[in-house]
Amino acid sequence: MRFDDRTDSRYNERVLGKDYERQDCSIARALEVVGERWTLLIVRDAIYGVRRFNDFQAHLDIPKAVLSERLNGLVEQGILERHPDPDHAGRHLYELTAAGRELWPVVHALFTWSDQNRAPSNRRFRHAECGTELDATAACPSCGITPPPEEIVMQLRHRRGGSRTDPVARALREPHRLTEPLETR
Amino acid sequence: MRFDDRTDSRYNERVLGKDYERQDCSIARALEVVGERWTLLIVRDAIYGVRRFNDFQAHLDIPKAVLSERLNGLVEQGILERHPDPDHAGRHLYELTAAGRELWPVVHALFTWSDQNRAPSNRRFRHAECGTELDATAACPSCGITPPPEEIVMQLRHRRGGSRTDPVARALREPHRLTEPLETR
Repeated sequence: MRFDDRTDSRYNERVLGKDYERQDCSIARALEVVGERWTLLIVRDAIYGVRRFNDFQAHLDIPKAVLSERLNGLVEQGILERHPDPDHAGRHLYELTAAGRELWPVVHALFTWSDQNRAPSNRRFRHAECGTELDATAACPSCGITPPPEEIVMQLRHRRGGSRTDPVARALREPHRLTEPLETR
Repeated sequence: MRFDDRTDSRYNERVLGKDYERQDCSIARALEVVGERWTLLIVRDAIYGVRRFNDFQAHLDIPKAVLSERLNGLVEQGILERHPDPDHAGRHLYELTAAGRELWPVVHALFTWSDQNRAPSNRRFRHAECGTELDATAACPSCGITPPPEEIVMQLRHRRGGSRTDPVARALREPHRLTEPLETR
């Protein structure tokens, strides 16, 4: 499709090669930014409040070189911002930009599909203000709004151990407000 | 994350290798099915009403071997069903299953993100019953419901040429009800 949509060739070249170049539509353009392997899981973790390279790495189990490349790509694309880590000289914090937080509906739609079509999830998402569980469209049925991630609390439906012992997995066993920095120490 | 969610190892092995194996969460599980390069664009086209191998190929500009592999994967995963094509002996039609149609919110969320954060799209989606344009969450603001794709009409906002001349691109210049077979002859 090539109507009045214009392809920004930087996305194609840097993030996905030139393969999507002629797929000039909004959906393809979003996939140019988040369609690479692992990228949406990095965005998921950032929405959960992960900010440090070591935490992403421990929770995602991916090679450091791949993580580094994906984080750089997300910074270049304006999804994450890189800041110096005040607690560790020479290290960085990765924080979601407004455009990054707006990927929450994509992440939630993937969650819903899998919850309904693959296996029920142990996680649930509640609207922080009223405590109501979000519906399949990520809306709060009580308030009639679709809360942004910073107004959503994620918690486990059934409190169980789980085999993962990395700091992120451990911290996420407690209820946690999305996008709020995750305490992993 | 590994709570009570179980990984179906078939997804990992067939679709993404074993890379996501320890990412045992609903979002990762959805990406195991649709996270491969091109897969969501094939699902997009199927939602637009594309059913024939040659039409996918002409519209997606991908190597036939890759398309064939992705279509096989989507059939294995229960997203598409393969039927004999009554008009062409030896060829097939690929039709979305219920699980495949339920990927519409994922596709729409990617559309919305890009429309708002990259470039405004020339497409719009209307609720067929009342004609109202869907909002950013894919809901109909008039009816207060989130219509399934078969109740949505896609059309161009501004009618323009566009440089693509393949049969799918040409057919999609007319208003078209999602999931309805696209007439490409």
